[in-house]
Amino acid sequence: MEKKQNVSRAVIQRLPRYYRHLSSLRAKGETRISSRKLAEMLGLTASQIRQDFNCFGGFGQQGYGYSIEKLCEGLEDILGLKRAHTAVLIGVGNLGRALIKNFSFESNGFKLLCAFDSDRMVIGSGMNGVTVRDVSELYAYVDQHKPDIAVLTVPHAIAPALARKLVEHGVRGLWNFTGEDLHLENLGVPVENVHFSDNLMTLCYQVNQTEEK
Amino acid sequence: MEKKQNVSRAVIQRLPRYYRHLSSLRAKGETRISSRKLAEMLGLTASQIRQDFNCFGGFGQQGYGYSIEKLCEGLEDILGLKRAHTAVLIGVGNLGRALIKNFSFESNGFKLLCAFDSDRMVIGSGMNGVTVRDVSELYAYVDQHKPDIAVLTVPHAIAPALARKLVEHGVRGLWNFTGEDLHLENLGVPVENVHFSDNLMTLCYQVNQTEEK
Repeated sequence: MEKKQNVSRAVIQRLPRYYRHLSSLRAKGETRISSRKLAEMLGLTASQIRQDFNCFGGFGQQGYGYSIEKLCEGLEDILGLKRAHTAVLIGVGNLGRALIKNFSFESNGFKLLCAFDSDRMVIGSGMNGVTVRDVSELYAYVDQHKPDIAVLTVPHAIAPALARKLVEHGVRGLWNFTGEDLHLENLGVPVENVHFSDNLMTLCYQVNQTEEK
Repeated sequence: MEKKQNVSRAVIQRLPRYYRHLSSLRAKGETRISSRKLAEMLGLTASQIRQDFNCFGGFGQQGYGYSIEKLCEGLEDILGLKRAHTAVLIGVGNLGRALIKNFSFESNGFKLLCAFDSDRMVIGSGMNGVTVRDVSELYAYVDQHKPDIAVLTVPHAIAPALARKLVEHGVRGLWNFTGEDLHLENLGVPVENVHFSDNLMTLCYQVNQTEEK
């Protein structure tokens, strides 16, 4: 797969959606799909989809539809899902626990190595094969095991300082659930923020619109 | 505030981000901001921000900067954050619990009326002022109390059937954490999906890019 430089964030954010829908088709045993059909599934236009795929050298076969298997493999390659990246999770409250127990890190490109918390009640416990360690061991662990990313499910007030220190210890990406801006722009470390409130406000807007009709 | 019709989804999705940043400035006692400064904070261009605000009749005062208070009030009005919408939550596992305990529904436009689960161990318990009821009472409760939206934190397999039935009972919006497509397109009911995996895959892509540089 040939990648072009400077692929826009909007395109990148659509790739996981493509992959999600295509891998569910693959799991159902489907083998081919047209850009038109894929566009319908995703609420996009066929030409948009072809343009997006062209950013990565295209996946060929205009007029014959795409091979779902090839698309999935291509997207796995582009997204880097098969490179065995590693993660640690910090903050084993309800949200941290929900991620450890119910979220498949593996199918999204990451092995979750272990989790950290300061609560003696959870330190030493294991869930879903993941051990909870004392947060006082965090930086020594990061130095030794060099996880690629850290998942932040800690209270928001401590998030920016924690994030900065993790980056100083070599962490190369942050998945931030704290709702707090981490202010790492200058460091060139990618951060993905999960803002529940943005999502709910968008729903609020839409519910209002249906009222006004 | 005058609203134009057919505001694009991209604009709508930026509004909560504007509101989040502006209300944090308001909380710090700031009173005015230029579109240029706001653009810097958000990683957008000033002209993009002016265009977005123009979709809603603008917030005036070119050259003098915007009043943060007026912007916040305008956005609260547009997003419908002060209309006392109501919500119920279904599925009090770790994620449901995390939302009940740590997420402020009120500051995002909703009052969380109560939660539902099928587990006898949690039915009848209260957390953060929210009572967990037996899911067998769900539809009778919805008929009587007419919540505007339902928050789905149930196992993914049961989500589509549950969502459809909630809509039949008058629920007007769904906040879907199950990762499952609800297939409600034909019903005209807004759905906001929280796809953790899309977010993590986007991070995976970016971490890969930093490797290749």
